[in-house]
Amino acid sequence: MKEEQERARRPGGRSARVRAAVHEAVTDLVAERDYGNFTIADVAARAGVADTSIYRRWGSLEALTTEVATSWLTTTSPIPDTGSLEGDLRAYAAKVAHDISGPSGLAVLRLVVALTTGEQDGTRARDDFLAERTRQLQVLLDRARDRGEQPPDTLDMLDHILAPMYIRVLFGAGPLTPEYVDSLVDRLLPRS
Amino acid sequence: MKEEQERARRPGGRSARVRAAVHEAVTDLVAERDYGNFTIADVAARAGVADTSIYRRWGSLEALTTEVATSWLTTTSPIPDTGSLEGDLRAYAAKVAHDISGPSGLAVLRLVVALTTGEQDGTRARDDFLAERTRQLQVLLDRARDRGEQPPDTLDMLDHILAPMYIRVLFGAGPLTPEYVDSLVDRLLPRS
Repeated sequence: MKEEQERARRPGGRSARVRAAVHEAVTDLVAERDYGNFTIADVAARAGVADTSIYRRWGSLEALTTEVATSWLTTTSPIPDTGSLEGDLRAYAAKVAHDISGPSGLAVLRLVVALTTGEQDGTRARDDFLAERTRQLQVLLDRARDRGEQPPDTLDMLDHILAPMYIRVLFGAGPLTPEYVDSLVDRLLPRS
Repeated sequence: MKEEQERARRPGGRSARVRAAVHEAVTDLVAERDYGNFTIADVAARAGVADTSIYRRWGSLEALTTEVATSWLTTTSPIPDTGSLEGDLRAYAAKVAHDISGPSGLAVLRLVVALTTGEQDGTRARDDFLAERTRQLQVLLDRARDRGEQPPDTLDMLDHILAPMYIRVLFGAGPLTPEYVDSLVDRLLPRS
């Protein structure tokens, strides 16, 4: 009862701190051990919160990891708005290349792969991840179309910009140099 | 001593049977549990051979899984020879799409991802996998060049034919339809 009153007085305060600590714990554990090799109890211990708090708020480890993966995507690769399709694509591709080349990026990609053959909650997590990525891209492409440009569609971006970078990172096949990332964008730009 | 004489008399006989049984056991275990969740003892039990036979012949689980992954690739996606670049690319892409859409294909792809952040043996395994895939593709592309055609290079094929299909399978993002696979090939063919 006292805790409820506390929360009402400082909305989001303790709740936001718990969320941040739990997200950080999941990201670290995924990077260190890979998904499948830790439990809600491990997350709770690392984040310094009670197991029951995590179960009450997220329900399952799959639901929690979904939230962490989509949140990571939303906050780390914001959609640029440079005024042109070419500028937006180059900025977005460079940002994604930078983000997935770090340890958290690789961990999130490996997480999505791990969730793919999991239980129903896992499949939903992967769908959420892809839906979020697609939604981000659609905003960028819609703006280009509104300006009278001829953008590719979101599946072309997934197949020819994100997929090559994802596979190179997942397979450890060489660094994502600026020249390489630009060459992927060049293929999708309308020929002038 | 008796076993040695036996082996000398029927070269490859027992040895080839053991190899086939061990490969099948690894492929099954990867598909069922994922790499990292089984041991050489599990492989030995499944294949009906002694642990010591596996250690003596392969040395480590990483070395064994390398051989299984590259062997799977070599035998399941042979390089076609249709007489034209377009025919070869369409046949090869269709075969890869078919192979990776099955349970063993997904298991091998997940295996390569799993090996990427592993120990040194794991990194070597992934490099062997990529080197084998690249060698296969180079044969196909060299033949096209010898005929006077203008083929893409092997990295273009990895980035724009294999990577999109690999990511769709790894992320569970929709079936690889013949139309989709052909559209990937279309992008890499010289414009006529």
